[in-house]
Amino acid sequence: MSKKFELMTARGVKDFPPEEKIIREKVVNILKEVFEKYGYNPFENPVLERLDVLKAKFAAGEESDAYKEIFTLKDQGNRDLGLRFELTLGLCRFVGMNPDLKLPFKRYEVGRVYRDGPIKLGRLREFWQCDVDIVGTKSVLADAEVLAIVQDVFEKLDFDIEIQVSNRKLLNGILEECDVDPNLRMSAMIIIDKLKKVGIDGVNKELKENGISEESIRKLNKILEIEDSNENKINKLRELVKNKQGKEGLDELEEMFSYLESLNVKNVVFNPTLARGLTYYTGPIYEVFLKNSEVTSSVVGGGRYDEYIGNFLGGKKQIPATGLSFGLEPITEAIKLREKQVVKSVAKVYVIPIASVKESLELIQKLRKSGIKADMDVMGRSITKNLDYANVMGIPYVIFVGEKEIKSGKFKLKNMSSGEETQISLEQAMKQLS
Amino acid sequence: MSKKFELMTARGVKDFPPEEKIIREKVVNILKEVFEKYGYNPFENPVLERLDVLKAKFAAGEESDAYKEIFTLKDQGNRDLGLRFELTLGLCRFVGMNPDLKLPFKRYEVGRVYRDGPIKLGRLREFWQCDVDIVGTKSVLADAEVLAIVQDVFEKLDFDIEIQVSNRKLLNGILEECDVDPNLRMSAMIIIDKLKKVGIDGVNKELKENGISEESIRKLNKILEIEDSNENKINKLRELVKNKQGKEGLDELEEMFSYLESLNVKNVVFNPTLARGLTYYTGPIYEVFLKNSEVTSSVVGGGRYDEYIGNFLGGKKQIPATGLSFGLEPITEAIKLREKQVVKSVAKVYVIPIASVKESLELIQKLRKSGIKADMDVMGRSITKNLDYANVMGIPYVIFVGEKEIKSGKFKLKNMSSGEETQISLEQAMKQLS
Repeated sequence: MSKKFELMTARGVKDFPPEEKIIREKVVNILKEVFEKYGYNPFENPVLERLDVLKAKFAAGEESDAYKEIFTLKDQGNRDLGLRFELTLGLCRFVGMNPDLKLPFKRYEVGRVYRDGPIKLGRLREFWQCDVDIVGTKSVLADAEVLAIVQDVFEKLDFDIEIQVSNRKLLNGILEECDVDPNLRMSAMIIIDKLKKVGIDGVNKELKENGISEESIRKLNKILEIEDSNENKINKLRELVKNKQGKEGLDELEEMFSYLESLNVKNVVFNPTLARGLTYYTGPIYEVFLKNSEVTSSVVGGGRYDEYIGNFLGGKKQIPATGLSFGLEPITEAIKLREKQVVKSVAKVYVIPIASVKESLELIQKLRKSGIKADMDVMGRSITKNLDYANVMGIPYVIFVGEKEIKSGKFKLKNMSSGEETQISLEQAMKQLS
Repeated sequence: MSKKFELMTARGVKDFPPEEKIIREKVVNILKEVFEKYGYNPFENPVLERLDVLKAKFAAGEESDAYKEIFTLKDQGNRDLGLRFELTLGLCRFVGMNPDLKLPFKRYEVGRVYRDGPIKLGRLREFWQCDVDIVGTKSVLADAEVLAIVQDVFEKLDFDIEIQVSNRKLLNGILEECDVDPNLRMSAMIIIDKLKKVGIDGVNKELKENGISEESIRKLNKILEIEDSNENKINKLRELVKNKQGKEGLDELEEMFSYLESLNVKNVVFNPTLARGLTYYTGPIYEVFLKNSEVTSSVVGGGRYDEYIGNFLGGKKQIPATGLSFGLEPITEAIKLREKQVVKSVAKVYVIPIASVKESLELIQKLRKSGIKADMDVMGRSITKNLDYANVMGIPYVIFVGEKEIKSGKFKLKNMSSGEETQISLEQAMKQLS
């Protein structure tokens, strides 16, 4: 057989060799562990969906990027299919297909999604989403709960974070209070969301360009410029925003903050300018950033979407829901930037047999039985080559098993980074390695 | 917005609700844990591959089922793509694209594959494969190592197993020894593989129908009917099979059995009639069955494929490899048949606040901090409704947090299956639940 193909990956997708996948697995394992500690359950939807189901998310005639970026295909029966572009839609379909589902339905899903879009740095056509959602309750207790998950996850990952929160109802109330034309409110939100990036002058300029009146901008500025503690910000806004929507938003925020306190969630900052692009949010919204990291994009985003599921299913019944999505890419990127050494193996120790395969196999099984991840030469290579292998793989320890060692019961354990060698018993080695 | 689509999954795929995904996650977590204990590293290939790469597996003009069952699609650049139908091919491509890869390359991958084939019971168009492979060594030490993994996995899953092993070289040697026409050997292998299912008469009938001579069949029968210990089987075959291939196969088997003994791998049965359908195996082959389970299909299959990667890459260089694939479907099926109770939640305990949300949140955070998976009412429901919820979800314990409990520091813990209630402190509850 001769090679009749290009030896390469498809455009916009990539392989994750162990040195990258080890970090990704670490993150995903922590996510799953914390999700489950909060009673969220594992769940899986197919990647392949009916194309009509995927397109049902979009209003008739809508030709947004996401719509155009659906990978489409047909099965042998000529049925129109597509690859899912998010995890939420499958959840909605599942809820619709299971009307007797016990609520609240708390699920997490970690899986791949696909978008046939332009390829930029850090934007692939196949990527992972890590979503945790709770369906069936309007209580902001659920919103506080998912934010507690955020805190636990980043504590385990050893990152300091800032959790920015706001509320869509409040934002609508603010725009109403400032007499912004209802038709311009969505674009105003998106502009205000950029405050951090472009500054107040930039925001004002763009608001003006988008037809927002000077009077409205002046009123908005008064609100946007509030800098204070979360509690004082809420109190000041209570003075400035008196309409029903705004009041509801402030009430929800206040209730959520009280739950967050009971849950001992810290580093929460109320940011009234936070909007989040997606149109389907209806209540609390949240976005999480790392402190002291070169990664400045948000690492988690989410919010309440009380209308999405109901609308998707035809609008007869509202099914409230809230949740958030962890960004696997920025989180792993931040870890990579922090770690000094490239590790290509999960193994903690590498066993080098010196004419002692039988005894080495017996020894390594004892290490493994005690829970230690252990690798061993299976090539019959020289000591030098084996040391080089352990070194390149980033395996921190090496054990030599020779005739002398077997007789004495003392094995040479070499620390690969310091070079230090110690003669120790198998039991001592187990203790040191575990 | 009104519903303009069929509320259903695509044909041949399915949702995995928590009650099923919890079992799948349990299996996958054990697989990953054991793979890593043996120094195999996590790895990920994309699901989307170039169509020419996927088709490169097949010889020119070959129109096998697998070839016809590739899901094909195009990206926005009109490039021909396909969804991967196995995990091995991506591994081959990766090895080819990384000529400086440090060998041996030990990786595992757990991921979805796609086949647009006919839908039968237990055969979906989107399904998971759990593969562990080692690339770069010819030593059967590697084959013994992957079989040790099998034993550890099923020990953790609490299943008794039988590991059947054979060797393709031996099988070729046997067929040569029995004067089976080289052109008929592949089909003869596939027929012999059915011995267990159709019996010796059935095998003989089919061999005859496929043009194998009576003389060859008579000779084959003498070999196939050997029933003895592994060691004696090898000794008897040494008498009967004298050609080079057969001898090599027997040598490899003997060497592998000695490693398996050192690795303390039990329940290995040498079955000379084991062939395994796939044509690319070149040495040791293995297939694993559960004992005392209604699931009779194999749960693991694999073998050595020293020529596959080299052939795929154009045949200039041989790159030896061996590995095996765990069947997630039959394993989870066997667990489902064994478990009596349906569990819809990972939570170990459900907290019911009685007008005490604040205190309940503080309490549940302590439970979670100590590692206990804990869920709590977020709907403000009645005690009866909350008990019903915990019951339907299969959550084993419930804790009530009322005014009295908070004052006394003693909480009512209810065992949901026995109905038993005890008054205990939070510390005692933590001990009992962990």
